Amino acid sequence: MTAVPAEPRICSIARTLDIVGEKWALLAVREVFLGDRRFDEMVKRTGAPRDTLAARLRTLVNAGVLERRPYSEHPARFEYFLTEAGLDLYPVITTLRTWGDKYLAGGDGPPLVVEHRCDHELAPRLVCETCGEPVNPRDTRARRTSGAYSLTATDRGSKAT
Amino acid sequence: MTAVPAEPRICSIARTLDIVGEKWALLAVREVFLGDRRFDEMVKRTGAPRDTLAARLRTLVNAGVLERRPYSEHPARFEYFLTEAGLDLYPVITTLRTWGDKYLAGGDGPPLVVEHRCDHELAPRLVCETCGEPVNPRDTRARRTSGAYSLTATDRGSKAT
Repeated sequence: MTAVPAEPRICSIARTLDIVGEKWALLAVREVFLGDRRFDEMVKRTGAPRDTLAARLRTLVNAGVLERRPYSEHPARFEYFLTEAGLDLYPVITTLRTWGDKYLAGGDGPPLVVEHRCDHELAPRLVCETCGEPVNPRDTRARRTSGAYSLTATDRGSKAT
Repeated sequence: MTAVPAEPRICSIARTLDIVGEKWALLAVREVFLGDRRFDEMVKRTGAPRDTLAARLRTLVNAGVLERRPYSEHPARFEYFLTEAGLDLYPVITTLRTWGDKYLAGGDGPPLVVEHRCDHELAPRLVCETCGEPVNPRDTRARRTSGAYSLTATDRGSKAT
């Protein structure tokens, strides 16, 4: 078999996954959404290995998804808060949850129900803002833009434009 | 420091991430959405190590996300197709892409534009199906259900109910 040279697609999905594309990173974000802001609580509620969680939190802070603020000086302890970019991950978290509720819930149904502000159960649906229609993959068509090309050079560390 | 016993949250997000919570798994799913169904093409367009991609594809097939169908007998070769459960991952893929477009695109904008069927650019937005309002994390409240408790025992392999 001839080895095929890799030409990874320049893609916003891949870039996002470089930051949150790992189970413990997204579960840490989930915890902050649920109000668990402290490291030990996150370890307990995610089951993540401490070192791994610490590394993921550093990545999330460096990427501007989480912000840490001190709540104790001696010893130095921090709480984590979602930035605007972090809050914008709510649709990602929600669509993952919805999929799990549909395909992986046991006989008793989903383990967590999210209520919307008018006290009904949140029933998330992805729609197209322009036409208001639900988003169905069969109705879409992907098209590469100039960004796909010029960014290839950047991503490869080349100075060519 | 006292070690805190882990009590991982029983959660549909965690369960979903056990299947797709890894960069190469979601990028493989992306490729199938984009029409690249063959292993070598996926290796080329994702940049994934071959062994890792093969393992992810096995997991995705076993989980019922992808289905493989033979296109050659000698040698045995397969193409991958999305099942209904796989197609239902489109909102996950789309919300990841939208976040990357907003926060990680270069000066030239997003590398890929997705067009909706009426030829406008797809502008995905998560709304609540019941009230039609955009989903804002500040307007939601999570509540544990009986599923969160009874499934704890199951997940731990205990027969207690």
